[in-house]
Amino acid sequence: MIVVFTGGTGGAKLIEGLAAEITPAELTIICNTGDDAVFHGLYVSPDIDTIIYTLAGMIDTDKGWGIKHDTFEALKQLDRFGAESTWFTLGDRDLATHIMRTKFIGQGLKLSEITDRFRRTLGVQPRVLPMTDERVESRLETPEGEISFQEFFVRDHWAPDVTRVRFAGAEQSSPAPGVTEAIRRADAIIIAPSNPITSIGPILAVPGIRAALLARNAPVVGVSPLIAATAISGPAHKLMVSCGLTPSALGVAQYYAGLMDKFFIGREDQGLASDISARNINPLCTDIRMPTAASKRHLAREVLASIGK
Amino acid sequence: MIVVFTGGTGGAKLIEGLAAEITPAELTIICNTGDDAVFHGLYVSPDIDTIIYTLAGMIDTDKGWGIKHDTFEALKQLDRFGAESTWFTLGDRDLATHIMRTKFIGQGLKLSEITDRFRRTLGVQPRVLPMTDERVESRLETPEGEISFQEFFVRDHWAPDVTRVRFAGAEQSSPAPGVTEAIRRADAIIIAPSNPITSIGPILAVPGIRAALLARNAPVVGVSPLIAATAISGPAHKLMVSCGLTPSALGVAQYYAGLMDKFFIGREDQGLASDISARNINPLCTDIRMPTAASKRHLAREVLASIGK
Repeated sequence: MIVVFTGGTGGAKLIEGLAAEITPAELTIICNTGDDAVFHGLYVSPDIDTIIYTLAGMIDTDKGWGIKHDTFEALKQLDRFGAESTWFTLGDRDLATHIMRTKFIGQGLKLSEITDRFRRTLGVQPRVLPMTDERVESRLETPEGEISFQEFFVRDHWAPDVTRVRFAGAEQSSPAPGVTEAIRRADAIIIAPSNPITSIGPILAVPGIRAALLARNAPVVGVSPLIAATAISGPAHKLMVSCGLTPSALGVAQYYAGLMDKFFIGREDQGLASDISARNINPLCTDIRMPTAASKRHLAREVLASIGK
Repeated sequence: MIVVFTGGTGGAKLIEGLAAEITPAELTIICNTGDDAVFHGLYVSPDIDTIIYTLAGMIDTDKGWGIKHDTFEALKQLDRFGAESTWFTLGDRDLATHIMRTKFIGQGLKLSEITDRFRRTLGVQPRVLPMTDERVESRLETPEGEISFQEFFVRDHWAPDVTRVRFAGAEQSSPAPGVTEAIRRADAIIIAPSNPITSIGPILAVPGIRAALLARNAPVVGVSPLIAATAISGPAHKLMVSCGLTPSALGVAQYYAGLMDKFFIGREDQGLASDISARNINPLCTDIRMPTAASKRHLAREVLASIGK
């Protein structure tokens, strides 16, 4: 069984490749929920949805989120009604997910139960686990005050200066059912090319998960979300700087030091290999961009080969 | 000020005519909420929505409910997710209303406050008041058990035998703010051509409303929702039989006896005029069908003329 730590877009690409290269049921995905937010009273879990939509073949691959061919009539109407936060784009089909999730939460179901119900309904073979069933929220300190990740990322187009990132609620949270067991029993663990600060960071902040990873019986292999000083997509490099890290694959390796055994980095970053090796992480240079289905499978095959699969 | 008691479709047609014939702000609409229901965790108030959509020029006039040119992507997705009650057709734009209402209810707002907010946002001049802010639910007893009005009307296409109709919660309810004051201060009161049992019946079942109508200072004029033995639309005649009433304009007159002074009936029902007069109700025969905008205005003008407007 292979465990993958992931956020949304970048991680989803690798997971799409992995699910095509091995028996999908052998995968267990541990998903960031630090970006979860309530919009219009509906509970939205963007990374879980991106992973499930991807594995169900429903994802809008152009955007990297949402459901393909979705329409936006409800959102336009919400906007006409003067609703807040209509900058967060919710498609009509996508809304069905959030409506159902919110209904189930109201009935007392846990996020992990709801997620499992969704992935089964949509025929998704891999287990998809939220990192926790509790609310943990990535909060970004800016000169204008603290904002959520979605406010920073979507509303403000990651323009604000970020002086600090914290995971509100993390200390009181515990791993969702199955998370630490999955890590303990894994044949290998993959850290997807997701934002280290706001995608993998919240997962590691849930008490018990970092410890489970430190006590691992299986190899941990990561894939860098950065090439040179910039994230392949999104604001990872900017948030790394905010957290005092070097914005590079080396900075990511430092962040994961002690937790990771092998690390795929871009060919462009071959010059970082010796510094990464010095941190007891085995660097593996390859093409880490995944613009096509073939490149997703190709990188997945390389990652699997590195763990003897 | 003119007060209108109404349900959805039939009442909305007359109200559309009234709003075109007098200053809309002179109208106060008292709306049935006995058909309200929760679908997918969202609070739906069908009659209020039909009235507001009508007055906002948004109504799907072909169907008599919902928003014109609406799409149904979220509903189709809910159906794929295995959601219950997808027989209740909710359009994508329409969903925005229910999402917003549910959010506001969660914030502690009353249905009357939410309704007022909606109608102002949509530029609707008449005041629209729910009959009550409490939950009152029309429950229909059938041989297979008790069902809601929407289950009877939409899901079961009004096929089940109905042996009894009750308004659950009515005894504990009270009129929404402004309702009894509007009745007391009205220059005239109109009972729209709505289902007497499940549209007007719930309004009259809210303690205080019937009494306010009995103590009226202003004339009450009704419009029959039936021609001969059949409702112009919907199951009014069937439910009248269930409640031991004659399915005809005369049966409606009997149901409203003591509450109504004048009653517009179809020319086809001229033969009922003397029996209606015998109940101290002045029958007025005219064309009560409203298939066109012109016929809505025409009937509205006649109704207004009957109360000296």
